[in-house]
Amino acid sequence: MHVFTTAAALQSFVEASRRAGRRLGLVPTMGALHDGHLQLVQAAAADCDDVVASIFVNPTQFNNPEDLRLYPRLPEQDTALLAGAGCTALFMPGVEEMYPQPTVLHFDFGPLERVMEGAHRPGHFNGVATVVSKLFHMARPHRAYFGQKDFQQVAIVRQLIADLSFDLELVVAPTIREADGLAMSSRNRRLSPEARAVAPLLHQVLEQAASQVRQGLAPTQVQAGALAALAQERQFTPEYFEVADAQTLQPLAHYEAGRSVVLCVAAHLGGVRLIDNIVV
Amino acid sequence: MHVFTTAAALQSFVEASRRAGRRLGLVPTMGALHDGHLQLVQAAAADCDDVVASIFVNPTQFNNPEDLRLYPRLPEQDTALLAGAGCTALFMPGVEEMYPQPTVLHFDFGPLERVMEGAHRPGHFNGVATVVSKLFHMARPHRAYFGQKDFQQVAIVRQLIADLSFDLELVVAPTIREADGLAMSSRNRRLSPEARAVAPLLHQVLEQAASQVRQGLAPTQVQAGALAALAQERQFTPEYFEVADAQTLQPLAHYEAGRSVVLCVAAHLGGVRLIDNIVV
Repeated sequence: MHVFTTAAALQSFVEASRRAGRRLGLVPTMGALHDGHLQLVQAAAADCDDVVASIFVNPTQFNNPEDLRLYPRLPEQDTALLAGAGCTALFMPGVEEMYPQPTVLHFDFGPLERVMEGAHRPGHFNGVATVVSKLFHMARPHRAYFGQKDFQQVAIVRQLIADLSFDLELVVAPTIREADGLAMSSRNRRLSPEARAVAPLLHQVLEQAASQVRQGLAPTQVQAGALAALAQERQFTPEYFEVADAQTLQPLAHYEAGRSVVLCVAAHLGGVRLIDNIVV
Repeated sequence: MHVFTTAAALQSFVEASRRAGRRLGLVPTMGALHDGHLQLVQAAAADCDDVVASIFVNPTQFNNPEDLRLYPRLPEQDTALLAGAGCTALFMPGVEEMYPQPTVLHFDFGPLERVMEGAHRPGHFNGVATVVSKLFHMARPHRAYFGQKDFQQVAIVRQLIADLSFDLELVVAPTIREADGLAMSSRNRRLSPEARAVAPLLHQVLEQAASQVRQGLAPTQVQAGALAALAQERQFTPEYFEVADAQTLQPLAHYEAGRSVVLCVAAHLGGVRLIDNIVV
């Protein structure tokens, strides 16, 4: 596995690979890899001739400096995991390499970013769209792999690709969970044993809400029930629970035939912010 | 010369060209070509193995529907001119091809677009940045050629390339002028003989202002003098005349050593909006 720290080195690898007619997959990550990431790499390795994984803790998508400071960083362990999963090139740039000068342009995704993560993390999706655009330009993938756990991020990236006519295919892989249902996340490492013990409640609440949606319970009742269930466990501080249209991400007043519903939740647990979702 | 009307056809041409190790130049235009455009194509042909020119009257960068409706369209004549200038592939898509679905994302370039064209044409640079991003992704050029006549557009495209790490080089070519000094523009075709006769005043005013800047006359005085000179010719309705920093495009209160000054003007002349600029 090649390891590149400069865009120029990555770009010459990618250019040579494309010239040789090879198909390229990109798996953008912020490191501290778990099985969710590795399954993205494995999926890319199954589809593509070369797999580029990037590890970059992107400062511009963090609205909370403490969250950025505490974000886990495990480059040696990550490198070994990626090599084992079929990654052919690892791109691990520093902040200076990705942002040699201050960024002036801002992305606005309208209603798509006025809800949920976008509403609670000002500037988050501008940072995501900026770094994803950069990574697309540096790695020039035929396919880019993202996990469904970051549901709204996937919607934003899908819109970015469509609106700017990026010539690549977005592949979305299902959320990978621990045996007890907790969605895998790099932030899970920061949970204390007490917090980790109650963390699966997030997924249980989503499952219960999904079954209520299937039974036709009104969105506001589903939402209220889910927030009440989370409030039962006093270690949790819920941030939002939304019953939304899975395409537009806008909160639903009532269900419409033929349209998927997504349930999304964010909550703080012992100083760690967790998100999860389920599509009904 | 190939003529493509779909992004897919252009992309396979470009992919084959790049795979063969050929260098690609892109000249994005809105058609109704004049010598300014053709010199961009000739410059690209001198530098690159393949030259893609695009002709697309981009609706999203027109804030004025009448301006869009009246924008000159001369596809047959343009095609012949491009073939003669060394263009190897012409991309002439329809609106449906460029915008198969409504665009959701908006670009905001901050102070760079709060002045001059950006201030007077709301949404203009969002449309420019969107269509330029699309064309870059469809044509994948090593180099992209723009004319200095659209000075603020060049600044926006330079920022777009830097901020999203587009892997290409921006080439800016000097404004090409008629013998009497009028900057070449597709919109000049719409000038009546009476308007055309006085049109060179725009450039004369810029030249006079430039000489005042060189003499150290204060920016506000240069501006006032230029607007007064334009008002002498009653066919002109000046929109703005700015003495600005050539990098940031912000209006200058006073000159700073070592920084270039740009003088930019926009004026209506017999129902046609003209712009011009000069760097001091």
